[in-house]
Amino acid sequence: MTVSSLAPDRFPDMPAIAGLGLATAASGLKYTGRDDMLLMHCDKGSSIAAVFTKSDTAAAPVQWSRDALASGHPPAAILVNAGNANAFTGSAGTATVTASATGMAQRIGCTPQAVLLASTGVIGEPLDSRVLEATFDGLVADIGQNNSDENGSDNASDNASNDASNNGGDNWSAAAAAIMTTDTFPKGASTTCMIGDTTVTLSGIAKGAGMIAPDMATMLGFIATDAALPAPALTQLLRTATERSFNAITVDSDTSTNDSVFLVATGAAGNHAPTSADDSILDEFVAALDRVMQDLACQIVRDGEGASKFITIDVTGATDDAAARKIALSIANSPLVKTAIAGEDANWGRIVMAVGKAGLGVDQSRVGIAIGGITVAADGMRVEGYDETPVAAHMAGQDVAIAVQIGDGAGTSRVWTCDLTHGYVDINADYRS
Amino acid sequence: MTVSSLAPDRFPDMPAIAGLGLATAASGLKYTGRDDMLLMHCDKGSSIAAVFTKSDTAAAPVQWSRDALASGHPPAAILVNAGNANAFTGSAGTATVTASATGMAQRIGCTPQAVLLASTGVIGEPLDSRVLEATFDGLVADIGQNNSDENGSDNASDNASNDASNNGGDNWSAAAAAIMTTDTFPKGASTTCMIGDTTVTLSGIAKGAGMIAPDMATMLGFIATDAALPAPALTQLLRTATERSFNAITVDSDTSTNDSVFLVATGAAGNHAPTSADDSILDEFVAALDRVMQDLACQIVRDGEGASKFITIDVTGATDDAAARKIALSIANSPLVKTAIAGEDANWGRIVMAVGKAGLGVDQSRVGIAIGGITVAADGMRVEGYDETPVAAHMAGQDVAIAVQIGDGAGTSRVWTCDLTHGYVDINADYRS
Repeated sequence: MTVSSLAPDRFPDMPAIAGLGLATAASGLKYTGRDDMLLMHCDKGSSIAAVFTKSDTAAAPVQWSRDALASGHPPAAILVNAGNANAFTGSAGTATVTASATGMAQRIGCTPQAVLLASTGVIGEPLDSRVLEATFDGLVADIGQNNSDENGSDNASDNASNDASNNGGDNWSAAAAAIMTTDTFPKGASTTCMIGDTTVTLSGIAKGAGMIAPDMATMLGFIATDAALPAPALTQLLRTATERSFNAITVDSDTSTNDSVFLVATGAAGNHAPTSADDSILDEFVAALDRVMQDLACQIVRDGEGASKFITIDVTGATDDAAARKIALSIANSPLVKTAIAGEDANWGRIVMAVGKAGLGVDQSRVGIAIGGITVAADGMRVEGYDETPVAAHMAGQDVAIAVQIGDGAGTSRVWTCDLTHGYVDINADYRS
Repeated sequence: MTVSSLAPDRFPDMPAIAGLGLATAASGLKYTGRDDMLLMHCDKGSSIAAVFTKSDTAAAPVQWSRDALASGHPPAAILVNAGNANAFTGSAGTATVTASATGMAQRIGCTPQAVLLASTGVIGEPLDSRVLEATFDGLVADIGQNNSDENGSDNASDNASNDASNNGGDNWSAAAAAIMTTDTFPKGASTTCMIGDTTVTLSGIAKGAGMIAPDMATMLGFIATDAALPAPALTQLLRTATERSFNAITVDSDTSTNDSVFLVATGAAGNHAPTSADDSILDEFVAALDRVMQDLACQIVRDGEGASKFITIDVTGATDDAAARKIALSIANSPLVKTAIAGEDANWGRIVMAVGKAGLGVDQSRVGIAIGGITVAADGMRVEGYDETPVAAHMAGQDVAIAVQIGDGAGTSRVWTCDLTHGYVDINADYRS
C-alpha cells in the first residue's frame, strides 16, 4: 500500500518510558511478514486510565477492559492484536478475551483483570485465542530481553515478571507498526514537560485510518508517561484531552466497535503527585498531553483512507462549545464538502448547507465563512466583489483551512478531517476491515 | 451525462390533472439547450400543502413559500427554476423572490402570496430576478396555449388567467425534465384510486440525485391530484406520506437548503370532500399517495449520484418506529457500508458497526442480520456454518436487501439508499451544485 501523501517525513524519535516495556510478535492470524501483536507491560505501582467506544456493539475486548478497569485492579499489561476485532462474536468472543487475559496473566504473574485488551480488524469473525496465545511466551521473553538489554541485567526471565523494572527503549516504532490495519504509516508522538521541578516524558502511538469519527472509530491509542499520577486524576486528564484530540477528528463519520485509548502512568519519574487533575502543578502536563494526543489524532487524519488534503475546521461564535462542535462535525462529515475539497473546488455553498443541516437554530443572516483566511461570505451572503482566485489557490494546497463564524455567542470548536477521494472508495470497496 | 444504470426503462404515461396547467421555458441562466423553468398553474378552488427543508440555512424561495402558505391565500401557481438555488443570498435573495412572485402574480391575476416558489442549483450565487422574469410571458402564454389545445378553445390569452380551466395534458415529461440538475433522468409517477364512488388521479414529478437525506435534501417534488381535499387534510396527508417516502431515502446524508414538496388538489374530480385526513373514505387515497411518492423517492435513489446498487434496508424489532428509523439511517448513511456494497463485498461487520454507532442502547446479544433473505448473524454472532456464497451472489445483483432484527420491541422502518462509488466522487469533485 502506498504511504499517504500527507504522512510525516519520518517516525519521530521516541524516548523510552521508564517503567514500561514493549514487545511485538507475529501471530500469522491475518498478515504475513509483519508483527500483529503488541504487549505493553508496566511496572508495579503504575496507574491507568482508558476511554472506549460508545458503540452499542462494542467488541469483546472493549467489554473486558471496561470491566477490568472497573474492578480496580492495578494494571500489569495491555495486550493488542491487529487483524481481527473480536467484535460481534457473542459468547465465543467472551471466551477468547477471558482465555487471552488469563493466559497472559499466568505468564507475567498477575490477576487476569490486570491485563487489558484491545483488538482491531475485521468484525464478526471468530477469533481463536490459541493463535494469539502461541505468541505469549515470546512476547513475555522479549519484554525481559529488552529490559535486560537496557538495564544491563543478565536475568532476562526474571525481568519478565510484574516485579521487573521495564524500559521500552526504542521499540515504539515496532509497536506502532504492529497495531496497523489499513494504516499506511506508523503513528507516534512524544514530548516532555515539567511537573513541579521534575521532568516527565510522554510517548504515545496510535492506529486508525478509516471508520474514524467521534466517538473514536477504529482507532486505538496508547499513551504512556513516567509521571506519577493517581488513577482518578489520570482518568480526568485523559477524558479532557480525548475531547480535544481523538474526538475532534473524523474521516468518514463511522464509529467502530473497538475504539480504545489507554493512558498509563508508571510513576518512575518520581514527581510530586498532584492532588487532582485540576492541580495547577499539572498545567504543563495538560498542555503536553494535548500536544501528544492531537499530534497522534492529526496523524490519523493524515492517514485517512484515500486522503489527499488535511482539513482544519474552526467554528467560532456558536451559542456554546458543544454547538460549535456539532456544526464543525456537520461540515467535516459532509460527503459533499469532502468531495468538493478533493476536487479543489471552492464550492463554499456546501459549507452553508452543512451549517444549515446541523439544525441548531442558527440565524443565517449573521453567518460568515472564510477559506484559507480569505473571507468568502459575511452576514449571510457572499461578500461584495468576491474573487475566487486566492481561495482556489489555497485549495490547491495540501492543507485546507475552513473558518465559520456563527455570530450567536462565544462557543468555539476545532476539528480535523480529510477529503473524500477515489482512494477511499478503492480501499473500502475492496478491503474487509 | 450517462443515464443511471438503475433508471426505469422509460418515463411513465402520466395523465393530465384536470384543473392543473404546466408550462416550461428556458431562461438561459445556467444551462443551454434545455428548459430550466416550470410553471404549475392551478384553478381557483384548488388547495395546497407543502413540506420544506428543516435546514437553518433555508433558501429565500423556501422562506417565501413557507410565509405565503402561512398567509392562507388560496394557491394560484408554483414557479420553479433549476440552476441557481437562491440560497444564502441575503437581502438580495429576498428581493428576488418578492420580484418573481409579484411579476408572475401580475401576469396571472392573483396576489403575490398565491405564487409559491422553488429553486434548485448552486448555493450562494446571486439570482437576478430579471433573468427569470424574461420567461414569464412565454410561460403564461404556454399555459393558455396548452389549455386552448386541450380544451379546443381559441381564447388562449384569457385562459392564462387564474379563472381559466387548466389541463396539463402530457406536459409532465417536459416538466420533470425542466427541474433537473445533476439528475440523469426525469422522474414521474402516476396512479388512480377511488374516493367514495369517484375516481381521482394523482400525478407527480421530482428531482434530486445528490445532497439527499432526511429531511429531504436537494429534492423537489410536485404532486397534483384532481381530488377535492381541504387544505388541513391535505397537509396531514402530505406530512404522513413524506415520512414514508422522501424522508425515508438518503444518498449521502447531506440535507439541502431548498428541499420542498408540494401537493396540489384541484378538486376538479368533484368527489365527496372528506371531513379530515383520517376519514376512512380516504383509505385508498392514502395508499395511492404513498405509491406515487415512494415511487418518486425510489427513483431519486436510483439516480443517486454514481449509484450502481439500489439498497433496501428493513429494521424490525426496535423499541419503536423512530428507533428503527435511526438504526436504518445509520446503516444507510454509513460510507463504509455503502462502499462495501459498491465493491459487492459481503462485509456484514460494517452493518454491525452501523447498528452500534446509532447509539440507541441496543442489546447486541439479540441482534440478527440478513442479506438478500439469507440469515448471516443471529443472537449477536455469525450463524453456525455460515456460507458466504449465496450472500455474495445476491450482492452481485443490482438490488441489495438488508434486514436487521433488533429483538427489543415492535418498531419497524424501511429506508432506501444507494451505494457509494467512484461515480459519486467524480460528480461531486467536479460539479458545483
